[in-house]
Amino acid sequence: MKKYYLLTPGPTPIPEAAREIMAEPIIHHRTREFQDILREVIEGLKYVFQTKNEILLFASSGTGAMEASVANLLSPGDKALVIRGGKFGERWGEITQAYGIETIFIDLTWGEAVEPRRIAESLKSNPDIKAVFITHCETSTGVVSDVKAIAEAVNSTEAVLVVDAISSLASIPLRADEWQVDVVVSGSQKGLMTPPGLAFVSVSPKAWEMIEKSTLPKYYFSFKEARKAQGKDSTPWTPAVTLVLALKESLQMIKDEGLEKVFLRQRRLSEATRMAAKALGLKLLAPKAAAISVTAIKLPEGIDGNVLVKNLKRRHGISIAGGQAQLKGKIIRIAHMGYIKQFELLEAISALEKELAELGHKVESGVGRKAAEEALLSNGGKR
Amino acid sequence: MKKYYLLTPGPTPIPEAAREIMAEPIIHHRTREFQDILREVIEGLKYVFQTKNEILLFASSGTGAMEASVANLLSPGDKALVIRGGKFGERWGEITQAYGIETIFIDLTWGEAVEPRRIAESLKSNPDIKAVFITHCETSTGVVSDVKAIAEAVNSTEAVLVVDAISSLASIPLRADEWQVDVVVSGSQKGLMTPPGLAFVSVSPKAWEMIEKSTLPKYYFSFKEARKAQGKDSTPWTPAVTLVLALKESLQMIKDEGLEKVFLRQRRLSEATRMAAKALGLKLLAPKAAAISVTAIKLPEGIDGNVLVKNLKRRHGISIAGGQAQLKGKIIRIAHMGYIKQFELLEAISALEKELAELGHKVESGVGRKAAEEALLSNGGKR
Repeated sequence: MKKYYLLTPGPTPIPEAAREIMAEPIIHHRTREFQDILREVIEGLKYVFQTKNEILLFASSGTGAMEASVANLLSPGDKALVIRGGKFGERWGEITQAYGIETIFIDLTWGEAVEPRRIAESLKSNPDIKAVFITHCETSTGVVSDVKAIAEAVNSTEAVLVVDAISSLASIPLRADEWQVDVVVSGSQKGLMTPPGLAFVSVSPKAWEMIEKSTLPKYYFSFKEARKAQGKDSTPWTPAVTLVLALKESLQMIKDEGLEKVFLRQRRLSEATRMAAKALGLKLLAPKAAAISVTAIKLPEGIDGNVLVKNLKRRHGISIAGGQAQLKGKIIRIAHMGYIKQFELLEAISALEKELAELGHKVESGVGRKAAEEALLSNGGKR
Repeated sequence: MKKYYLLTPGPTPIPEAAREIMAEPIIHHRTREFQDILREVIEGLKYVFQTKNEILLFASSGTGAMEASVANLLSPGDKALVIRGGKFGERWGEITQAYGIETIFIDLTWGEAVEPRRIAESLKSNPDIKAVFITHCETSTGVVSDVKAIAEAVNSTEAVLVVDAISSLASIPLRADEWQVDVVVSGSQKGLMTPPGLAFVSVSPKAWEMIEKSTLPKYYFSFKEARKAQGKDSTPWTPAVTLVLALKESLQMIKDEGLEKVFLRQRRLSEATRMAAKALGLKLLAPKAAAISVTAIKLPEGIDGNVLVKNLKRRHGISIAGGQAQLKGKIIRIAHMGYIKQFELLEAISALEKELAELGHKVESGVGRKAAEEALLSNGGKR
């Protein structure tokens, strides 16, 4: 019997209602029916982004919307600040450099969060920085940034703040309007519980002013074209119809549960995972800045993360992620985003215990799961 | 009872097997399972594109892959030739101009096909043209280009030929290798019977040489990154997993039927539609160059195409397309691509007869359907 539990940081499991609607006969996108759905989806996204700013939708993965932010905000000769503490921070830099933008980096050890005062200092020494590109949850390290404090530092300047919230949206609180985040970028396949292939940006009035002046080339990802079409409940190009339909269902689930409860549910899962790791004698990669959406756990010397991840999949049907780039084989990453229930997490922890023991890590059977269960119970009681 | 027949030129109906697989629990894209599926899909696409060239896959609509072709082939200061005879020819020009490419246009009356000798002449007077951008089937007018003859004209020069085959692939014969077409662009939602959200390009060795030298900015749509990842049966960014799965099913259906039979089946539908139009006293928009994939029919003076299309949808559940831009209200477009059976076409023609009469067009009841049925029978006999 093959049954899989998906605890990877994207794609995350898709709820049944969202899966089933994709199997319905497809509808045409230039119809009143689809216009109503698109409008509802954009409204639902505004709730999740916690913003009244416009939200633009693209048929692409999240990286497309990251590139779109660079191409729509900046012009040749502009200067940008990029925070680089993992694979996705590096991606911001690769994009700004691909567009010939003069890029200043704040480089971090992987597993470390940026201190907001370093961003304030960099903006002070480089008052001509036009945009600051940060990663809310650095999926490759499980590190969360203090977006609120960073936004405070950026908002007293002319620069706009662009936040990659691909693996944080609907998982880690991100209050776009309250914190004044100019551009929030996200994708469908993580906290939004929808298959990959849709990306979104929210755009503040301050960002729109910069967009009006931007001269970098763009077409498919043009924010202005997207805004114009969405003003008529449409899209400039053929939208990814089935994914929009699925997103409508998933957004409805988030609205029904309530965003704050969605955050709390995932916080409980992440806390339980951290307790389990401790009980298993394992250390977190980012003990001071561990994200809610994904927990990165360091493996003891001599245990190959690639083998561990493969064994969990093959023997238990449990999919978690290993490390990427310089962390390959050295960490495991367990996601808490979206449609993952505590039962699945507990199963994953039990399986992890067994496979760690199999690979030679000395651990008393059941301690990880017990610690996780206790954490879930005590948190459940309090909340 | 609501039951719809979709005869629009994209999205086209999705076969049951392709719809159902999207409702399965999602799989992770960095797995052997997905790698095998991706490899199979690329092989299937090569069969449909009739090429041994590399085919690259993107999570975007077809327009994204059009832009990608411009950004990956050209460099600032380059010159391009664009054939402009409808909305999608115009799109090529909008993209080249967005990227600052010096663009020479051959402008056509909407409904007219380009004479290949005009392209040869333009290349002769402008030997520094780097790329020629054409539309195989101009969806907005139902006009088909003579790609074979155009390729002959381009292949004797240094320029590359880029063909938008979005609404022709798997519908109108396009023999990429035999005709030596350098870049073929297509999308998932037309002849490939898959929901919108995937785009493809096939790339010839001559095009790869130009790509190596291209300095226009690109990242998400980088052909080089896509080639590198696909060499390992992977994608540079998260792929649109559910759409790739659906495409695998639809490609299997095309392989099972055989590409030549797929072409013939649609040719029969388009011929029947032309016979029906004639019997109904209606003229084709493009009598000399009518495409197989979509038939554009002119409406008599005084009949509003927008009202006609709405009435067909509302009263009969039949979705066809109206005209776009300068042809708004003046034509109707009936698609023959993909998963459309002759029964659905006949129903559409019957309904069209009724609604034309309702709007005041004098027509003897049943003549359109009869002409279509006769055409189908006689073609069925021969083929």
